[in-house]
Amino acid sequence: MDADVHESLRSINDLMPYLDAPWQRYITECRFTGIPGDPYVATAHGGRRADSWPADGGPPGSDYDLVRQHVFDEHNIDYLILTGHFYRLSTMPQSDFAVALMSAYNDWLIDTWLARDSRIYGSLQVALQDPAATAREIDRLGSHPQIVQIVLPCVAQLALGHPAYHPVYEAAVRNGLAVAVHPSSFSGSAASAALVGSHPRTYLEYHQNFALAYQAQLTNLVLEGVLDRFPEMRLVLLEGGFTWVPHLMWTLDAHWRSLQLEVPWLRRRPSEYILEQVTFGTQPVVVPDDVEHLIQVVQMFDGQDRLLFATDYPHWDFDSPTQFLPASVPTEWRRRILGSNALQLYGLPQPAEPAEAASARRAAP
Amino acid sequence: MDADVHESLRSINDLMPYLDAPWQRYITECRFTGIPGDPYVATAHGGRRADSWPADGGPPGSDYDLVRQHVFDEHNIDYLILTGHFYRLSTMPQSDFAVALMSAYNDWLIDTWLARDSRIYGSLQVALQDPAATAREIDRLGSHPQIVQIVLPCVAQLALGHPAYHPVYEAAVRNGLAVAVHPSSFSGSAASAALVGSHPRTYLEYHQNFALAYQAQLTNLVLEGVLDRFPEMRLVLLEGGFTWVPHLMWTLDAHWRSLQLEVPWLRRRPSEYILEQVTFGTQPVVVPDDVEHLIQVVQMFDGQDRLLFATDYPHWDFDSPTQFLPASVPTEWRRRILGSNALQLYGLPQPAEPAEAASARRAAP
Repeated sequence: MDADVHESLRSINDLMPYLDAPWQRYITECRFTGIPGDPYVATAHGGRRADSWPADGGPPGSDYDLVRQHVFDEHNIDYLILTGHFYRLSTMPQSDFAVALMSAYNDWLIDTWLARDSRIYGSLQVALQDPAATAREIDRLGSHPQIVQIVLPCVAQLALGHPAYHPVYEAAVRNGLAVAVHPSSFSGSAASAALVGSHPRTYLEYHQNFALAYQAQLTNLVLEGVLDRFPEMRLVLLEGGFTWVPHLMWTLDAHWRSLQLEVPWLRRRPSEYILEQVTFGTQPVVVPDDVEHLIQVVQMFDGQDRLLFATDYPHWDFDSPTQFLPASVPTEWRRRILGSNALQLYGLPQPAEPAEAASARRAAP
Repeated sequence: MDADVHESLRSINDLMPYLDAPWQRYITECRFTGIPGDPYVATAHGGRRADSWPADGGPPGSDYDLVRQHVFDEHNIDYLILTGHFYRLSTMPQSDFAVALMSAYNDWLIDTWLARDSRIYGSLQVALQDPAATAREIDRLGSHPQIVQIVLPCVAQLALGHPAYHPVYEAAVRNGLAVAVHPSSFSGSAASAALVGSHPRTYLEYHQNFALAYQAQLTNLVLEGVLDRFPEMRLVLLEGGFTWVPHLMWTLDAHWRSLQLEVPWLRRRPSEYILEQVTFGTQPVVVPDDVEHLIQVVQMFDGQDRLLFATDYPHWDFDSPTQFLPASVPTEWRRRILGSNALQLYGLPQPAEPAEAASARRAAP
C-alpha cells in the first residue's frame, strides 16, 4: 500500500469542464495558468524522478498509464492513495476563486483517477481560507467510496490547531475521513525562515526544515485541543519524518506536567493523543550509521503500528517498498508498515491474493 | 559545575556608572527602564523560583549572597557560569544605544560578579545588530580570565549562520571563547508563530517551541558553513533540549547526501560538525516513562561526552544536580555531565578537593 502518490493536472484547462462560466471567463481573461508554485528551485533533478515525465509532454503524475506502471506494476503495490499537488490552493488570497478551484479539482480527481481504477483512493483538496465552504465540500464528496481523507498543507494562514479550522476537522470526522498533512511550499520557506530570521538560501535547508513545521503543527493541534475535541479524528503526517516523535512526546509531556494550568481542556497527557490518533508516512526514511538506532527510535513510539509506507511518486526522493527499510528491521514490522497499518487506518478491504501467490499456495503440499 | 545561572541587574541604574554622559542623559530623559521584556506571561510561577526573590526587593539573580547560597552552598557546585538575561539586547532597533548598553553591562558583570568570587565565570553579552562593534567588544574583554564565552539569543534579526555574523564568531575563536546560545523572548513567540501561521496562545506552547528554534539555528549554522569555517569554534546550546539531536543529525546527513551540490563549502557531512563542535546544556532534562529510552537517545550522539549540567537558576524549571538524572544513568556519565565535560570545554582547572573529602581520603588506610 502506497500512502502518498501525487497526481497532477496536465494543465489548468483540465478543470474548465468543472467550473461555472464566470470562473471559466476569469481564467481565460486573466490568463491564469495555475496556483502558486514553489519559491525554491528543486535542485534535486527538478524535484521529480527523471523517468516520470510522460511522453505526451504533460507533467509527472499526469498520465494514468505511467503511474500504473511505475507504482502498481513495478512495485507490486495493491492500493495507492493520491494526494495531489493542490494543497497550495489554501494560500490564494482570492478565496472565492480558491473555493471554485477546490470543487472543480475534486470532481476532476474522481472522474479522471478514481473512476478509472478501483485500486486508487483519493484525498479531497481543501481551501482553508474558507473553512465553511471546505466543510460543505467535504460533506458533498466525503461519502464517495474511494475518498479516504482530506489533505492539508503543512503551513497555512493560521496554525492548524486554530479554532477557525475546527469545522473542517468536524466535517472530516463526520464523513469518516482521515486528515492528512503534506509539505507545501507556501511559507515552507517563509516559515522556516521566520523561525530563524532569514530565508534559507538552499533547497537543502528548506527541505530539512519541513520537519520543524510538522513538530510545530502537531504541538499546536495537541495543545489547542483539536485531538481531544475530535477523538475519532485520525491525523496522517506525510513526508514530515518521524525520528523526532519521541523527542516531541517527551518534551510535550514534561511541559504539560508543569504548565497544564494553561490548557485545562486537555483531559490526557499530550503523548496519549499522539499515540492514539496520529500516524506518520515513512517517506523519506533516514537510516543512521547504526541501524539499531533507527529500530530503537521506532520502538520508542511503537512506530511499527503507526507508520505508513509511501513512495512519494513522482518526487525525486522516491522510496521503493523493497529497499526503504534496512534488512535488519523485523519482518512483522515491514508487513504492518507496508500494508496492514494503512488498511486498518483507512478501513480498506484486504487485497485479493495475487494470482501467482495463490497458485503457489495451492501447489504447496 | 553549573553551566547556566542568570545574574540580573537590580535596575538599569546599575549601568549608569559605565555609560558616557550622553547615554546617561538618554536614559534619564527618555525614562528608559530596561531592555524589552518577554511578551508571554510566565504562567510557571512568574518564571522564577519562589525562594529566589531577594529580601532587598531586587529581582531574582540580583543578589550575590542568595546566588551563592542557592547554587554553591546548597548544591555543592564548584564553578558556575553566568549567562544573564541581556540577550534581548540584540533585538533593540536603536543599535548605537544597544552597543553602549552591551559594553556597560559587560563592565558591570566583571565588577559586580567576577571580581567578587573566583568560582564565578561570565559570558559576554552581544549586540548582534552591530557585528563589528560586537567583535571589538569581544576583543576588548575576551582575555579576562573569568570570561569563558559569549552568549547569543536563540532568535536574532538574521539566522545565526548568516555571513553578517561571521565576524562575531571569528572574534570569539580569536579570544578562545565558546559561543553559547540561550532562549530569548525576541521572536521566541513571533518565530514559532510564524512557523505555523499564528502566535501560540499559551506560555506552554511558546516554551515547547524553543527546541524548534534550536533545531533551525543549528541546521543553519552547519549548512551556512560556520562550523566548517571556524573549526575551533565551540558552540554551546543552552536550554534548547537535546533529545532531538539524533533526529537532526540523521536527517541533515540524508539531505546532504542527496543535495550536497548546493553546499560545496561543506567538507564533511553535517553530523561530524555537530559531534565535534557542539555541546548541549542538560536543562531541562525530560524523562520518558521508560528511562532506558533516554539512555538510548543519549548514546545515539554520545551525549555523555557533550552534555553540560545546568541549573538554570533562578528560573522556575531549576534542575538539581542530584536529581536531574534518573538513578539508572551510569555513574561515569553523571561525572562527565556534571563536571568534566564543562571543565574540558572551558579549559578550567580541576577544582580544589573539598576539605571534608580530602580529610576522608587521608583517613582511609
